[in-house]
Amino acid sequence: MQIAIPIFPGFTATDAIGPYEVLSRLPGAHTVFVASEPGLVRSDTGFLQVQAAPLSAAMQPQIVVVPGGPGRSLPLHDTVLLDWLRSIDATTLWTTSVCTGALVLGAAGLLRGKRAVTHWQYIDRLASHGAIATAGRYVFDGKTVTAAGVSAGFDMALALAARIAGDSLAQAIQLGIEYAPVPPFDAGSPDSAPAEIVAMVRRAAAGA
Amino acid sequence: MQIAIPIFPGFTATDAIGPYEVLSRLPGAHTVFVASEPGLVRSDTGFLQVQAAPLSAAMQPQIVVVPGGPGRSLPLHDTVLLDWLRSIDATTLWTTSVCTGALVLGAAGLLRGKRAVTHWQYIDRLASHGAIATAGRYVFDGKTVTAAGVSAGFDMALALAARIAGDSLAQAIQLGIEYAPVPPFDAGSPDSAPAEIVAMVRRAAAGA
Repeated sequence: MQIAIPIFPGFTATDAIGPYEVLSRLPGAHTVFVASEPGLVRSDTGFLQVQAAPLSAAMQPQIVVVPGGPGRSLPLHDTVLLDWLRSIDATTLWTTSVCTGALVLGAAGLLRGKRAVTHWQYIDRLASHGAIATAGRYVFDGKTVTAAGVSAGFDMALALAARIAGDSLAQAIQLGIEYAPVPPFDAGSPDSAPAEIVAMVRRAAAGA
Repeated sequence: MQIAIPIFPGFTATDAIGPYEVLSRLPGAHTVFVASEPGLVRSDTGFLQVQAAPLSAAMQPQIVVVPGGPGRSLPLHDTVLLDWLRSIDATTLWTTSVCTGALVLGAAGLLRGKRAVTHWQYIDRLASHGAIATAGRYVFDGKTVTAAGVSAGFDMALALAARIAGDSLAQAIQLGIEYAPVPPFDAGSPDSAPAEIVAMVRRAAAGA
C-alpha cells in the first residue's frame, strides 16, 4: 500500500509527519514524500528540510495525504501538483488532507460537493471550492477525508488506520506512539481558548 | 534563542517534529537539526529523510531536544554525540528529551539522580542510568525535562513554552497548531489500552 505525501516550500511539518507517523506503521505501508520540485523542501518555519522524490514516484498511490501551511505558501496555482492530485485521485482508496491541505484539494477541484474541514482560521475559504464546511476534528465524506489544523492529522490518521486495518491495529499504533495527550492548556480550539488568545492569533495571522 | 535537535539514523520523526513545531514558534527561536554524521538522516520507518547540519552548528544552544527511536537504533555508543551533549548541557537553559531520547541523555550521564520519564516500554531502563523513573506525560527536574513516548513531545514543549514565554504565548501556539486532540480510541497508554492491545505491542517489540 503506497502512501504519497506531497510537500511544498512552506508546508507545516506536523501536517505531514502526524499522518506519516501513524499510517507508515500499517502492515505493508510504503510512504513516499513527493514534490513538484523534488529535492530538499523547506518547511514553513524555514528550519526543517525534508527530502522529496519527484511526483512520478507515486503515480497510483492508494492513499494521498496533502499537508497544509500558512495561506501564502499554499501551492494553489502549482498546476503540475494539482494535475497530479486530480490524476491520482481517480484511483486512490483514500484522498486526505490536514489543515489547509484541504484548500489544495479544493484548488484541484476535489472537494466539490463534499463535506470538509480545515484549520479553523481558513474554514470560510472552503465554500469557494464548492466544499461544505463541516465542524469536526476530521470529516469523512466517502473516500475523501479532511482534518482540522496541524495536530488533527494524528486523530484523522488513527481513524483512517482503523478503517483500513481494524480497530485493534489502530489502537496498537496509538499505544506505540503513546498518544494519550495531556495538553497543558485547554486552548487548542477557538471554542475553548480564552477570547484574548483567539484575538491574538487572529491579529498575528492578519499581520503575517 | 537557539534550539538544537540532534537526530540519528532510526530516529522517530514525531519525537523531533513535535517539539520543533511548538518551540520554533517562540519569538526569536532558531531551530537547527544536527547530527554526528550530517546530511540526510533517515527516520525509523525508513521513509523520511531530514537534512541535518554538523553538531558544530550548535555549540551553545539554549535548548536541546533529544528525540528517541526504537531501542536498536539509539546512539548509546556514539561518543561524538554523547560528548557534544555533555558539552552543551553545561550551558543550556533546558536539556530535554522525548521518548527514548531519555536513554540517550542517560548514556551521556545527564540523568544521574534526576526524575525522568521515557516511552512506557523502556521505563525500566532509566534506573541503569541513575535516573529516578517517574510517572507523567512529562517530567521537569530543574532544567532537565523528559517526555513520555513519541507524541508526548507536544505536551512537554507547550509546557516548556509557557515557562519560557508565558502562558498566553504558549496558548497562542497551541491554538495555532489547533492542538485540541480527540483520539478516536482511549488506547494511548498502557493504563488505558485494552490488555490484549498492550500484549500485542509488547509481543511486536520483542519480535522486532
